[in-house]
Amino acid sequence: MNYCSQCGAPLIQKIPPGDNLLRHVCGQCEAIHYHNPKIVAGCIPEWAGQILLCRRAIEPRRGLWTIPAGFMELGESTEEAAIRETKEEAQADVEITALHAVLSLPHIGQVYLVFRGRMRSPTYEAGTESLEVGLFSFSSIPWEQIAFPVVREALRRYVIDVTTGRSQLHLATLSDRL
Amino acid sequence: MNYCSQCGAPLIQKIPPGDNLLRHVCGQCEAIHYHNPKIVAGCIPEWAGQILLCRRAIEPRRGLWTIPAGFMELGESTEEAAIRETKEEAQADVEITALHAVLSLPHIGQVYLVFRGRMRSPTYEAGTESLEVGLFSFSSIPWEQIAFPVVREALRRYVIDVTTGRSQLHLATLSDRL
Repeated sequence: MNYCSQCGAPLIQKIPPGDNLLRHVCGQCEAIHYHNPKIVAGCIPEWAGQILLCRRAIEPRRGLWTIPAGFMELGESTEEAAIRETKEEAQADVEITALHAVLSLPHIGQVYLVFRGRMRSPTYEAGTESLEVGLFSFSSIPWEQIAFPVVREALRRYVIDVTTGRSQLHLATLSDRL
Repeated sequence: MNYCSQCGAPLIQKIPPGDNLLRHVCGQCEAIHYHNPKIVAGCIPEWAGQILLCRRAIEPRRGLWTIPAGFMELGESTEEAAIRETKEEAQADVEITALHAVLSLPHIGQVYLVFRGRMRSPTYEAGTESLEVGLFSFSSIPWEQIAFPVVREALRRYVIDVTTGRSQLHLATLSDRL
């Protein structure tokens, strides 16, 4: 971040009055440019004891499996974001039934909100960001080919919950060592 | 948003390849500048059947009451953000015990994550952003002087939960008409 997005002048780093963190501040118009964590909204789509996974058609981790998930957009709710991502990446319609996990990834400034979603029908198809999409029983989940540690962790906790008949919210922080 | 924060050239609005939303894109270096919702992490600090509220010393809504809450920063977890805000605004130390509510405010691009926090001692004091801080029994909550509708809604649901002996996660979307 080098230039002010408001006036185009060079930015400097300083602690604004009343603040206690270094911020990017414009030397000309004095606008303060904050950086904040982003929300990734995801969904575990469920159908008859199976879950829907997508094989990524894009980098990073092209060719590996994940749940439908992506950056939340302005103007939508967290649940709407999860439903939209499921539609875009797996062409599937889900009804959100619960928030499964809130997983903080402070090393990359992201917070995953992973929902459970009941598929309205066993209809799905690869979206433009997926190579293929498929339903997996718990015993066939490709654990060694999951794209991201945070998704593996969300799925691991999900399988334990469902297997033991529990539904709970998971609050956790994942380090970059996971 | 008028200028590219990377190279300083003017921005144009267009839909990037593979996207379906208008974005701010640099006409020179082609950097895409995304805007995403921000997380506000908040805490309802609890002590002996009472809750801790802060009277705002800053705009907006100076002079009105709220829970400790603020924008999550890079490098912290959601729980750490709620603990930090409680320390900054009320000089109180809390242990997070549960996530009380995930409240989406799509009209202003915010998501409130409101936690329950057990105060480690009945020690508190106004931080620089608060005029005063105090413990309130449920019957003395100043409902008509709560700073923000989202905070009033979080507190309303909290009081019902505690009064009826429940602890549950609230998922809701608040419109600007609330």
